[in-house]
Amino acid sequence: MRLLCSDEARKELISAGLLDRPGNTVLLLGMAEASAAQAALVTRDVFGASTDSRLEPHTAEFFDALAHAPALQWVHTYASGLDRPIYRALQSRGVTVTNSAGSNAATVAQTALGGFLYFARALHVARAQQDARTWRSLKHKDIRALDRLDALIVGWGEIGKTLGRYLDALGVHCRVLRQHGEQVSEGWPTATYAAFDTWVADADWVFFVCPLSESTRRLFHQGTIAHLKAERPLNVVNVSRGAVIDNAALQTAHDAGLVRHAYLDVFETEPLATDDPLWKVDDFLLSPHMAGTADGNRAAVIQRFLKQLAERNSAPDRTHRADT
Amino acid sequence: MRLLCSDEARKELISAGLLDRPGNTVLLLGMAEASAAQAALVTRDVFGASTDSRLEPHTAEFFDALAHAPALQWVHTYASGLDRPIYRALQSRGVTVTNSAGSNAATVAQTALGGFLYFARALHVARAQQDARTWRSLKHKDIRALDRLDALIVGWGEIGKTLGRYLDALGVHCRVLRQHGEQVSEGWPTATYAAFDTWVADADWVFFVCPLSESTRRLFHQGTIAHLKAERPLNVVNVSRGAVIDNAALQTAHDAGLVRHAYLDVFETEPLATDDPLWKVDDFLLSPHMAGTADGNRAAVIQRFLKQLAERNSAPDRTHRADT
Repeated sequence: MRLLCSDEARKELISAGLLDRPGNTVLLLGMAEASAAQAALVTRDVFGASTDSRLEPHTAEFFDALAHAPALQWVHTYASGLDRPIYRALQSRGVTVTNSAGSNAATVAQTALGGFLYFARALHVARAQQDARTWRSLKHKDIRALDRLDALIVGWGEIGKTLGRYLDALGVHCRVLRQHGEQVSEGWPTATYAAFDTWVADADWVFFVCPLSESTRRLFHQGTIAHLKAERPLNVVNVSRGAVIDNAALQTAHDAGLVRHAYLDVFETEPLATDDPLWKVDDFLLSPHMAGTADGNRAAVIQRFLKQLAERNSAPDRTHRADT
Repeated sequence: MRLLCSDEARKELISAGLLDRPGNTVLLLGMAEASAAQAALVTRDVFGASTDSRLEPHTAEFFDALAHAPALQWVHTYASGLDRPIYRALQSRGVTVTNSAGSNAATVAQTALGGFLYFARALHVARAQQDARTWRSLKHKDIRALDRLDALIVGWGEIGKTLGRYLDALGVHCRVLRQHGEQVSEGWPTATYAAFDTWVADADWVFFVCPLSESTRRLFHQGTIAHLKAERPLNVVNVSRGAVIDNAALQTAHDAGLVRHAYLDVFETEPLATDDPLWKVDDFLLSPHMAGTADGNRAAVIQRFLKQLAERNSAPDRTHRADT
């Protein structure tokens, strides 16, 4: 199998022992031979500092090579979601696209937890006091105990499940929205995404950890605002995809006192424009799509790819072992 | 029993049903009758915005009343630690002092966790970029995966145990220092506080969650610096007492690249002086002794006091019930 990958991934595959495996049939291609590719591995470095709306030249070149490789049958990507145009175009050509969903789920859930605790434990207040070199004691009544909070987890893939486990350990009461609505476990009320507007009204925190699909696009929308309550303002964490929230609606809700804090890692247009009004909302914490960033991820993606490869090759591999 | 408490605590005790209990022998005193007190309840409002180094007038008045109540036998405090001078003075007079250690342990551990994740998940980098309205992607190699981190938990009371449970759930490897050094459980290396300097050398994070005592005072001191490694800078969380760290040594270690980040909630002198150099360390997050602050705490302290009261009165209470 002729496999296209980046120079960086080539080194990682070689040091992971790919070429030394008995019965190896993989030939690693570089960009010069890209048109002959039958398979491709898209690692994080291929995407680099590209965003969904602006591809770097080396990313565009790689994606272009995929579009012009007539023998291409399989692409494995480091990404969790397959909602990017390139993957959709490949799938519509009949190319199998496999993803690495779950390989960084714990990291994403941990970042979501950090964004939650930053506000829920008033570290943002501490940070502001530190900036002003001011010591002002906080009052018990001004910080809700975590075991008095109700959370709504939107999405129940690996990230949602991991986050649910973390929040439960902290005593936060959780409810869940998921595609098919089956109850996730005893004592965890569950519904489909369609219940969002009504269920969010009774939540102190909503965590978006769902894939982007037609049933999750703009879950938080202008119509959501009418359901929110000033006496119980909502707090928001989004580590999924920017398009699950209509940010204009989110900001309207904030300005009306219906949304208090938000930790947002993803945006409909990335990078977020310098003049985007979201930057200025002091009650919000913004990060540059990095919830899943951690130094173990590359190795996990390489292992995930090798596992997929072994599964796809299982028949010929077995034949070869029988021969030796 | 004649009990001195604040007006606020009086209301809470009454609404918790203290006076309606069969066989109640408690008489609630205000400041005017303080000199007749046999017992006293020190709630958070008594301390108010006081600090160890500067008492507010109403706090000083209450403590003064305790010092001049000849019949005083028992004082219950909302605090976890009994290291404040007032409690030591009472104990040396033969007064029994009971504390509320553990009643806010989960809250303190959650705040420590939040301070840890703020740095470990690079939210401080996000915050700085937001301030500058800059979008700069972070690289995998720049953020260590949590399951590659080694933590040293200093103290194994309720806070340490709870924090250990949280960190373990996140995949962080934990070792423990405690007073007597018995291993806390399978796979958790444990030693006494005396091992601090050598064990901290192999930690990415150290969490101070110990009581202040002669064996924990200035655990982090000038002599610690020689044990630290530039290739593995230490990160620090302190939610115990300021005096467990020599802050001048901490800052020296930071400036030498041996300490990277610190989340500090407690200080040897509180409030921290406006011109204290710690305020200016951008790599540190400071908060105003609020790790245990949450709205469930007052009720927990009242319940803790009532439980203590019931235990102290158990003999007379039983007699009374037999009579009715």
